[in-house]
Amino acid sequence: MIVTLEKLAEITGSTFSGDNNIEISSVAAIEDAGQGQISFISNPKYRKLLESCEASAVILNSSLAKDYAGNSLINDDPYLTFAKVLNYFHPDEKVPSDIHPSAVIEDSVSIAKNVVIGPNAVISQRTMIESGVKIGAGCFVGEDSIIGEKTVLHPNVTIYKETTIGHRSILHSGVVIGADGFGFAPQKDKSWFKIRQIGKVKIGDDVEIGANTTIDRAALGLTVIGDGVKLDNQVQVGHNAQIGEHTVVAGGTMIAGSSSLGKRCQIGGAVAISGHLKLTDDVVITGKSSVIKSISKAGVYSSGTIADENRKWRRNAARFRQLDEMAKALKRLEKKSSDK
Amino acid sequence: MIVTLEKLAEITGSTFSGDNNIEISSVAAIEDAGQGQISFISNPKYRKLLESCEASAVILNSSLAKDYAGNSLINDDPYLTFAKVLNYFHPDEKVPSDIHPSAVIEDSVSIAKNVVIGPNAVISQRTMIESGVKIGAGCFVGEDSIIGEKTVLHPNVTIYKETTIGHRSILHSGVVIGADGFGFAPQKDKSWFKIRQIGKVKIGDDVEIGANTTIDRAALGLTVIGDGVKLDNQVQVGHNAQIGEHTVVAGGTMIAGSSSLGKRCQIGGAVAISGHLKLTDDVVITGKSSVIKSISKAGVYSSGTIADENRKWRRNAARFRQLDEMAKALKRLEKKSSDK
Amino acid sequence: MIVTLEKLAEITGSTFSGDNNIEISSVAAIEDAGQGQISFISNPKYRKLLESCEASAVILNSSLAKDYAGNSLINDDPYLTFAKVLNYFHPDEKVPSDIHPSAVIEDSVSIAKNVVIGPNAVISQRTMIESGVKIGAGCFVGEDSIIGEKTVLHPNVTIYKETTIGHRSILHSGVVIGADGFGFAPQKDKSWFKIRQIGKVKIGDDVEIGANTTIDRAALGLTVIGDGVKLDNQVQVGHNAQIGEHTVVAGGTMIAGSSSLGKRCQIGGAVAISGHLKLTDDVVITGKSSVIKSISKAGVYSSGTIADENRKWRRNAARFRQLDEMAKALKRLEKKSSDK
Repeated sequence: MIVTLEKLAEITGSTFSGDNNIEISSVAAIEDAGQGQISFISNPKYRKLLESCEASAVILNSSLAKDYAGNSLINDDPYLTFAKVLNYFHPDEKVPSDIHPSAVIEDSVSIAKNVVIGPNAVISQRTMIESGVKIGAGCFVGEDSIIGEKTVLHPNVTIYKETTIGHRSILHSGVVIGADGFGFAPQKDKSWFKIRQIGKVKIGDDVEIGANTTIDRAALGLTVIGDGVKLDNQVQVGHNAQIGEHTVVAGGTMIAGSSSLGKRCQIGGAVAISGHLKLTDDVVITGKSSVIKSISKAGVYSSGTIADENRKWRRNAARFRQLDEMAKALKRLEKKSSDK
Repeated sequence: MIVTLEKLAEITGSTFSGDNNIEISSVAAIEDAGQGQISFISNPKYRKLLESCEASAVILNSSLAKDYAGNSLINDDPYLTFAKVLNYFHPDEKVPSDIHPSAVIEDSVSIAKNVVIGPNAVISQRTMIESGVKIGAGCFVGEDSIIGEKTVLHPNVTIYKETTIGHRSILHSGVVIGADGFGFAPQKDKSWFKIRQIGKVKIGDDVEIGANTTIDRAALGLTVIGDGVKLDNQVQVGHNAQIGEHTVVAGGTMIAGSSSLGKRCQIGGAVAISGHLKLTDDVVITGKSSVIKSISKAGVYSSGTIADENRKWRRNAARFRQLDEMAKALKRLEKKSSDK
Repeated sequence: MIVTLEKLAEITGSTFSGDNNIEISSVAAIEDAGQGQISFISNPKYRKLLESCEASAVILNSSLAKDYAGNSLINDDPYLTFAKVLNYFHPDEKVPSDIHPSAVIEDSVSIAKNVVIGPNAVISQRTMIESGVKIGAGCFVGEDSIIGEKTVLHPNVTIYKETTIGHRSILHSGVVIGADGFGFAPQKDKSWFKIRQIGKVKIGDDVEIGANTTIDRAALGLTVIGDGVKLDNQVQVGHNAQIGEHTVVAGGTMIAGSSSLGKRCQIGGAVAISGHLKLTDDVVITGKSSVIKSISKAGVYSSGTIADENRKWRRNAARFRQLDEMAKALKRLEKKSSDK
């Protein structure tokens, strides 16, 4: 596919500067882009890369474009514009609707049109597969579930029974939705009595769920993933948790049961959020933090310490264990000093 | 299924207060429960929810029941009683014994009666499937393994060869048992020589293993998961680790190789336990902690710092790196002050 | 298989002490080894175990061997020697080349000789399976991929399209390679616009990847895993990350997008490495650390605090939040004290 810079401006609602007829046929990173390719800079701190840039055009904001002698596609949001250009050159693959003969589909399953079901996928009783859905090889979908329009399950996804997934959602390989929450009642003999998990999982529209992420079914009621939520790989969402619309969660983050995250939150990777907490809307948690109290005020929150030379760290970590004593000694000295 | 409050008291070994003939047909959370439903409160801090409760009955301890005008099922352990009521309304599904024609089962496999094997499951040579076992779609069970009576493998579980699993255990989807432990010998050229992992995994009775949890085979000997152990999702158990009876481990916790956890331990989520440690019985580790030394005394242990406003945290985290210097300065001041 | 100590010395390039004709038939841990078995001690701190050792021979360095009256196989590197002895007693299983009839293999796939493809595996269009490759049951390999000579995919591995894997690599069950990186552009309405991930994953020779580990495809360009890299279970490698040759990463470590690790690094378990960082060669990060800045100097780095009694920890963690104030108070006192 070859397109002029002028056409790309039209498609993305941008202006341009330079040769309107320059032809673009693909997209590349700014360091790698050559003739026929378009790239972008969204963070001004990378502007120096423009000096040696060999791309046929670069997507820039107006301020960066002013100083750039080459061809540019100009938009206040270069990153979003780049995403749209990418979509133009790499449209959704048109996979012919097809149900592989090796797929095992129960009689009571309802399948709409334009559905793709891969080899060895298994669809259980009374489940509804809506139009435009793609289910990859080796997926298992339990009974009484709904897979909404145009949702994509990559290969080897597992969906337990009674799960509802909205429209245009994407589940990557190894995802497990609806496994039992972690609930056990202690018994007198110190063994644990399993709490049957009779709730369900409800996933909204336009959700993306990364590889090997797990979302447990509720004990009672629902575990809810709101519209537009994006979860990275290896995230864990406990039973009865709720994640508000357009919240994003980076890789390896653990969200314990019954906690609720507000809308538009941004949770870093490897974060741990304890159970039964409430985080309000627009909360940002930086990576590796530990959240053990509810957060009622929007803002950026962090915990942890930062990697240091092991030799120094060992001394400081040892002192951490004396911190309360240090604080008390300090108070005593301050008092003594001010008494004089 | 409809049952009277009196009958539920009989089934669960409880007493009751109120209308013995009130009919109960299902279970719900205290906020959601309506007519015909029973709920529970096990933590007195939620007693306020009783004021607006519309459930036909509530499971309470005697102290809470005294102040509640509605119908109550009275038991010293409301949570366990609730678990038993749940089981009454939601008994194990009776799945007819069935081996799906698409399952691939080697000739030398021994299969007892009342077994369910789902579509596309693969059972390898000389493996024994005991009575009442359910193996979900897409599971793989390696050779020379034993899957004990009434154990359930949810879809897409992978069991490597020579694994033994006890009775009534539950493995959720995406679980991998018996993959090679992480063992390599350094070579002079800085490459790594793989240590062949010839040990096995032995899992006890009544164990539950959460989705996408991994348990590695031993290098030599056994990795052992004791009876009654409950592992949440995305837990990692390294080679030759041992987990004592009735220990519970929450999601995302990493237990490195050759470490042993005692009986009845409670390990929070996102904890890291280094290799070759020994934790005694009845140790509690709170979430997100890092354990790098053995623990020989029962009790509650923690590490880490707690999420704070990022602006404040950044200053405090920077100071952490000066902690040893601070401690020394403090000591000098104390000395100077006491010298006077 | 039975072999004399003399023969084992020859095979492993070692010397020996004691009875050259003693017969060895298997390998065991030092505590468990009995007649006919060989064991090893690589760390001198375990030398005490030699006193009660019943093995027919022990692999020792010359210093330990001097004090040991029993039979020993003597080598400067007992651990590596042990690994080689293990390989001798447990050679690669010779699995007859076989493609299971239930495997689904597209016509355009090229398959070399001596290939094993397990039940229900799916190989997509134009993918090349080189000689000696083993693909386990239930694996999915996307289109236009290359699985290099003698590489092993254990059951239920998922490889997205356009992935290249080198020779002699081992991928454990539940691994997902090539899922979309976590990239979204914010929109004015606070929803997220997916950045199409058009890059690929390239994995080198002699790489081992642990169970349920995930490696995302690049946004543009490549995510690269160098030759000889060893990743443990449940590791996450973000899009466009690069891992240098012979680097090892322990379980549960999260490596965010566009970060690059040098050669021969050793990254502990449960570590988090933020995005867009550069770690130079020969960096060691201890377990549970958080790395948020690039590291340009080889060495050992750490962060975090160490598990303590909860009662003490709670006070110290509270003081952490006052650390900057404490430091300032200390400075004031020091100034006051020196002014006198």
